[in-house]
This record gives sequence, C-alpha cells and structure tokens, in this order.
Amino acid sequence: MNSTESRDKKSNTTIVDTSDDLVTSPDPTHPANLIPELCRHFWTIGWATGTGGGISIRDDDKVYIAPSGVQKERIKPEHIFVLPYPQSEPPLASTADTRTFLRKPSIPLKESACTPLFWAAFDLRDAKACIHTHSQHAVMATLLWPGNEFRIEKLEMIKGVRWGGVEGTMTYEDELVVPIIENTPLEEDLRHTLVEAMKAYPKAAAVLVRRHGVYVWGPSWESAKTQAECLDYLFELGVKMKLANVL
Amino acid sequence: MNSTESRDKKSNTTIVDTSDDLVTSPDPTHPANLIPELCRHFWTIGWATGTGGGISIRDDDKVYIAPSGVQKERIKPEHIFVLPYPQSEPPLASTADTRTFLRKPSIPLKESACTPLFWAAFDLRDAKACIHTHSQHAVMATLLWPGNEFRIEKLEMIKGVRWGGVEGTMTYEDELVVPIIENTPLEEDLRHTLVEAMKAYPKAAAVLVRRHGVYVWGPSWESAKTQAECLDYLFELGVKMKLANVL
Amino acid sequence: MNSTESRDKKSNTTIVDTSDDLVTSPDPTHPANLIPELCRHFWTIGWATGTGGGISIRDDDKVYIAPSGVQKERIKPEHIFVLPYPQSEPPLASTADTRTFLRKPSIPLKESACTPLFWAAFDLRDAKACIHTHSQHAVMATLLWPGNEFRIEKLEMIKGVRWGGVEGTMTYEDELVVPIIENTPLEEDLRHTLVEAMKAYPKAAAVLVRRHGVYVWGPSWESAKTQAECLDYLFELGVKMKLANVL
Amino acid sequence: MNSTESRDKKSNTTIVDTSDDLVTSPDPTHPANLIPELCRHFWTIGWATGTGGGISIRDDDKVYIAPSGVQKERIKPEHIFVLPYPQSEPPLASTADTRTFLRKPSIPLKESACTPLFWAAFDLRDAKACIHTHSQHAVMATLLWPGNEFRIEKLEMIKGVRWGGVEGTMTYEDELVVPIIENTPLEEDLRHTLVEAMKAYPKAAAVLVRRHGVYVWGPSWESAKTQAECLDYLFELGVKMKLANVL
Repeated sequence: MNSTESRDKKSNTTIVDTSDDLVTSPDPTHPANLIPELCRHFWTIGWATGTGGGISIRDDDKVYIAPSGVQKERIKPEHIFVLPYPQSEPPLASTADTRTFLRKPSIPLKESACTPLFWAAFDLRDAKACIHTHSQHAVMATLLWPGNEFRIEKLEMIKGVRWGGVEGTMTYEDELVVPIIENTPLEEDLRHTLVEAMKAYPKAAAVLVRRHGVYVWGPSWESAKTQAECLDYLFELGVKMKLANVL
Repeated sequence: MNSTESRDKKSNTTIVDTSDDLVTSPDPTHPANLIPELCRHFWTIGWATGTGGGISIRDDDKVYIAPSGVQKERIKPEHIFVLPYPQSEPPLASTADTRTFLRKPSIPLKESACTPLFWAAFDLRDAKACIHTHSQHAVMATLLWPGNEFRIEKLEMIKGVRWGGVEGTMTYEDELVVPIIENTPLEEDLRHTLVEAMKAYPKAAAVLVRRHGVYVWGPSWESAKTQAECLDYLFELGVKMKLANVL
Repeated sequence: MNSTESRDKKSNTTIVDTSDDLVTSPDPTHPANLIPELCRHFWTIGWATGTGGGISIRDDDKVYIAPSGVQKERIKPEHIFVLPYPQSEPPLASTADTRTFLRKPSIPLKESACTPLFWAAFDLRDAKACIHTHSQHAVMATLLWPGNEFRIEKLEMIKGVRWGGVEGTMTYEDELVVPIIENTPLEEDLRHTLVEAMKAYPKAAAVLVRRHGVYVWGPSWESAKTQAECLDYLFELGVKMKLANVL
Repeated sequence: MNSTESRDKKSNTTIVDTSDDLVTSPDPTHPANLIPELCRHFWTIGWATGTGGGISIRDDDKVYIAPSGVQKERIKPEHIFVLPYPQSEPPLASTADTRTFLRKPSIPLKESACTPLFWAAFDLRDAKACIHTHSQHAVMATLLWPGNEFRIEKLEMIKGVRWGGVEGTMTYEDELVVPIIENTPLEEDLRHTLVEAMKAYPKAAAVLVRRHGVYVWGPSWESAKTQAECLDYLFELGVKMKLANVL
C-alpha cells in the first residue's frame, strides 16, 4: 500500500492508512519504536501507571502519538497514530472530530487525550517532543506550592533545564519558575489554560497541572526526556525540602 | 491424556487432571502465562513479597489461580490451578473442602487462600480478573483513614477507576470511596465481610482490608491491573497528602 | 581432580580443593548458582550494597558461603567457599583460624565475615539458609525501638514468619518479637550476643543488630528468603507507622 | 590506524585519534565498556538522571571520560574520551583549552564538565576511579548539615569507607567526616575549593557539594563504586535519622 494515498488532509472521511508502513522501522530511534520504549520506562518509574502519561514525538511533518487508555508498558509500534503536521484549521488540533490522520491502528483504539496538549508544545514552542507525566512528585509540588507558580533556586539540576524548554540552558544563578494551572474534568479542556500559561510564561520549560501532573517539552526527544528528568528531580527535592523545613 | 475426562464437577474424589494440558500455551496472554508474569511484576513493586498477594484470571468457564505460600516471582505455568466456573453449590467456592478443580499441579501445592475472595469478584461483579496486594500504601491508607471508608477526591488518577470496578470510568468530579473491612486471622474468613462490603458499596471498585491490603477487580485482566495501579497511586498519594497536611 | 581428597577436616594445612568441581552445576537451584543470583537481587533492593549483606546456604553436610568485601551483585559461582558441616571443634566455626574448608576459590578471597553468624543459625536452629541484610528499614527499626526488642502486632504479613524461623507459621493474633543486640566493631564478635539472643528468644525468627542490620534464617533458602521479605516489610511498615503516629 | 600516532601530548592542534581503537574491547571490564554500564546503573538509581553524574576511570597512563550533556544511560564505548595521564602543565587539566587527548569521539561531543574534578582525585589521591553523583540523599545531607562537614558515627556501613578513599577501611568506632563545599555556577570552577577541601581533609573519602551532589573516588573502580554506595547509604540514613529525631 502506498502510504501517501492517505495524505488527504481536507476531510475526516478520507480513507486513512491502517497499514503498518509508517510505524515499521528497524531503527530503534524511529518514533514508532521510541514511544513504546520510553512509555515502558516512564511506567517503570511511576510517570505513566494506570494508563496515564506518555510522550508524543514530532519528526518534521509527522506527529507520532500513542493510544489513549492502554497499558503504557505494553504499547507496540502498530498501536501508534501518525498525524500530519501542521494542522492549522482549526488551530492546535483542538477537537478530536476535526483531526486529520496519516495513519491509524487497524484495531479499535483512540488517540491519546493529550493530543491537543502535545500539539500546543509543537505549535507554540516548535518542540519536537512533549512528555506528560502523572508523577507524584509533580502532583505533590502543586499541592505544596498552592499559588500559580512552582519556584525553586540554587540547585545544580536547574542547569539541565532550558529557557522555554527549547532555548539555551539555565544557569545555577537562575530561578526556575514553572506555571501551575488548575485541572479540568476533561484532559482536552486543559488546552485553553495550558496555551495561556505557555504564552504568559514564554521562558518556562513546562506547565504543571494541579492534582494531575506536568507537561514538559524539548527541541528533541532526548532533550524533552532529560528536561523531564531534571524537573521531576526538582519537584521531588523541592517537596522533600519543604517537608524538612529547609526551604 | 484427554483433559476433558477430568471435568466431573460433582465430587472432590473425581480424578483431577494433573497434566499440563490446561496450562500450556505459546500465547503470552494465556492466563497460565500471564499469572506468573504479573505475579513477578507485583513482587518487584512490593505488592506480593513474602508469598503474599497475587492475581486470579477467569476465562469464560475456567478460573486460573496461583498456589498458596510460594515465592510469587517464581511461579511457573505448571503450578497453576484451574477451576470450573461457576461453582454454585455451595456459593462462592467458600470452603476448600467443597471446591471442584479441572486441573491441579502434579507437585504438592495448595490453591491460594484468596480463592473465595477472588470468587466473590467473579460472582458479584462478573469480573474477569481479581488482584490482591499487600501494598504498604494500601495498609497505610487503612491506618490513616481509621473509619470504614477511604475517601479521596480531586485527583486526576481517579479517572482511571471504574464504577463498581467493571462499569464506566469515574470522572474528575467524582469522589472515590473504597470500603475498609477489618482483617481476620484466616484469609478465607474475610469472605463474609468482603461480600457484605461489595453489596453495601455496589459502586466501589475495590475493598481495602485493614492492616492487610486490598482486593481490586475488573472486566479484564488489563482493566484489573490498571485500576489496581490507579488505586495504589491514590492510596500512596493520599497518605503523603495526609502526612504533609494538605488533605 | 577428586574433590573428596580435600575432606580432611583436622587441619588447616591440608590441601584444600580449589577446583570448581563443588561449585559447578547446570542446576539454577544449586547453592553455588543461587547465592550469586540472590545476592544480586539483595543488592538491587538495598539489602547488600557496598559489599555488605548476603546469604549462606547449607545443603546437607556442605555449607556454601560468599566471599567477604566483594561487590555482591558480581559474585560468580567460582568465588563461593564450601565448608563441611558440622564443625564441632571449636563450636560454631567461631574463628577464621580454625575453620575447615572443602573448597576455596583459586583467586585470593576471604570467606564472609558473617560465617560464624550464619553458622549459629545452622547449629542452633538447624537452619538450611541464613540471610544477612543491611536494609535501612532494619536499621531504622533498631533506632525507633530503642530497647532490646522490636515488637509489632496485628499486621497480615506476620503470618509469613515462622516460630523460631523454622517451625510453623505465626498467626495474625500473635505478636512478633525480634530481639535487638548491640553492634560490635568486628562482625565476628557479634557471635556471642547473637547466640545468647537466639537462646533467650527460642521462638524468634531473626535477630536485629542495632545500627547494622538483621540476621534471618529458615528451614530452606526459599523460606529464609520469604521470611526475610516479610520481616523487612514489617520493619519498614513499623517505622512508617511510628513516624505517622499510628503506632 | 595506528593509535600511537596520536600520542603527541604537546599541542591541542595535534591530530587526535578519532578511531575506535582505544575504546573497543571484548573485555566487559575495559573502562570503555565499564563506563557505559556503570553510568546506566547510576541513572537507574537516581545518581545520574538528566545528564548529570558519571564516572571516570584511570587505567595506568590513560584516563577514560564520558561526554558532557548526554543521556547517561545511553552512552556507547565510541563516545568515550581518552586522555593521557598525567598532564602536569597546567596542573589538574584545569581548563578545557589546555587539555590533551589521546582519543576523541568522531561525532561532536565535549568531554564531561567534571574532568578537572575527576583529575583532582587522580592527582591528589592517586585514585583509579572517581564517581560524581547528583543523588538527592547527598543533596539533602548538605541541606540538613548546614556547616562545612557531614559527620556521622556508629553505623555499620562506615566500615565500607576507606581513609582518604584509598587507604585502609574505617572501623565501626571511627567517625565519618565528609567536607562540604559550596556550589559554583560552573562545574569547572569547583576545582579550586574541591582541591582545598581534599588537602584540608586528607583522610576524607569524598567531598560533598552543597545543593549539587558528591565526588567519591577509590584505588580501583570497584572500590570507588562500593564506597559511593556506602556513602550514599549513610547520607540517606543520616537524613532519615535527622528527620525522625534519632540523630
């Protein structure tokens, strides 16, 4: 099957490729191989248990997204959705009804509910990857920092975070500020406030969602992942410091 | 050997199949392969150390159960018991003496002491899998919520839990309520209060056992497992929140 | 080489077998294979980091012991010492000078400093395996229970512990009592107080060593290991309960 | 290619070997194989997430160093830098500009920013390996011990630490003292105070860096690693003891 046949972006009714062509590669760093590997790892460290959390990778004009509501440690390449990038009408791939796909799994699966959130990072920051975690460290940080910002400073790990998530790395003398938005009943409905927070904090590398988790992105999947590690470390350490009265 | 020969459900004295026919399959998702794999994982994350905890899977008219008192990370398919489902006389496979088996291991092993508890989930909720953990998060939750219920709300992970464990998923606006029953000296003796709690809380996805652990079930093994992950996350986070005075 | 040639127990100067005969087996449950596997696992869970901790297994008239001061996750079968059992003159293999060996590694290694402690479990409880951990949960328990005993009750996991470590399992209604002895500068010097504690508490399944760790044994390696898991769980949970003011 | 051709230590402008000759070996204990393996492990246990932390190994007249700013669990032997040892002009390989290399990766990578810190352990203690971690236990220790020293005593694990990191092991009766230096914006700038601390505390096995992590070394990679494990255990336990009011 010729996968280009499916690239009609105008209509949802177009026949979408359900072959495995776009998600089959011997290259372990192909997004369709990386997403299952990284999701398995995120599940192992508590970022993606109970079907939550995950990562989306953008490779040039294609966005790779995992399915919704599945065990994140058991995703296979053939479960991955592929969407064309950009999708400007409507902006940010905001509703599931109007999304265009290059490829869908042949078994009945739905793309991640985080799709419009991942998309915001691609559109607003030109990110190449976006990670969402349900890490308890992120959630505890949103509870111990009850305002609209998580702030911490003077910790070496800050140096692993990039301005805006995609520019140069921060220095030891910079204060890390991560905006916190309130959670909404539907994950899709976070899009509006997430976009607002990203615009209000153009230098922020991530957005925390109260009682929910965090969105982190980067100019590559490697950078998104290492920044997610640095930020999770800082959330965890910040919480420990608060509880130990040394912050 | 013809394994159907052993399917006489009337009597314990019937010759029971001890061949490996019912527990041998190249399919990794066969219950006799899944139970060892999942028990090994549960042991790794602290749900099933010291021989405690485990999972039972029901596949149509067969129930697969692990042995009692063995290292849960070293179970092999040939250690698995297979029981016919349903067993209505007496209800809930309540005593070991009256249980009927399709298949027993050839080496001297006893079926899990949780058998009547797993059975309650099959009979009362039409569950296809039931998980029991000794997770310290579950135990700590029963100690910090000293009444008859664990209650928590406004946490994203609640959305991964199903009404009654088997119906539609809860929303972010729903409060999670898990009944807590008191522990008994013999695991089998929990059956009565577990059944009572399941009937009194038809919308509850699990039952906590004070100073012991939790029983969780689902309409499939995947769903039972992801719900067990969500609930364990919520027990852990709830305990952290109480101790940090943010609940 | 005929390994029986080395079985002259009278003198240290006898030629001791340094071939790999006594420690080479294709059976994964052979002590010389199990000890490396279990030590690797104990290292992973924090029981045996920094070269501390380990397990000794007795198989009929042979005792298998790991070397001292090595990375416990990198032991190989050929590093294992084999000692004849019993060694009654002097009792308890008390000093390194007077120990008799059936087999020593060909590279320069010394047998574990825990040898006389392991031996006490073999002699006094007829144990077939003895585990020593440096688990922080055990150490914290000795600090939060400042007297001579760790006591806890009404926790399901107690049912996985055996009276005296080798008899029938405890019930939910029994209180767990583990004697605590004071640490000594040299591990060998613990022997006297460990033996005293084992005699004073004939029903105890383990001995805690203040600011150091715990010794646990069982009638088989499987039982020693599952009891060590139950006890470590109880130390951890007991510490959590104390710190959360629910004990 | 003859790797000796590149051994002109006089000038940076010399052609440096970019072949894989110096980093290719079937021996798993070759430094170019060990560094990736150990970094992967350190990442797993939280010592080297977010690209931070690592290990350098000195083998006679060669020093093997990992690249800077990469995912520490994905290093490959061909990413390793090889530097000649010693490099006396200027001392301690203090600035990146003046370092001499035997071998550099063929892809654009920079040697670890910890290079001058690792070098200090080689020059001042004749160490054969130096480990740097971002362990949260080390960081929390620097916050709960606000002065210039971490001090702890009467814990068995102290016996796994060596005087000065390279001499005989400490006894149970010795107090462990680890100097704490203040962090600097650039990792390279730590060199001066690290060297000062190592000279002021010639018996110390490590140097803690406030709000950052720790440097540990040893007379072999095995010893550096087991000492790092003992020290991390002691930092973790010390923090727990402080927070539980038993220290």
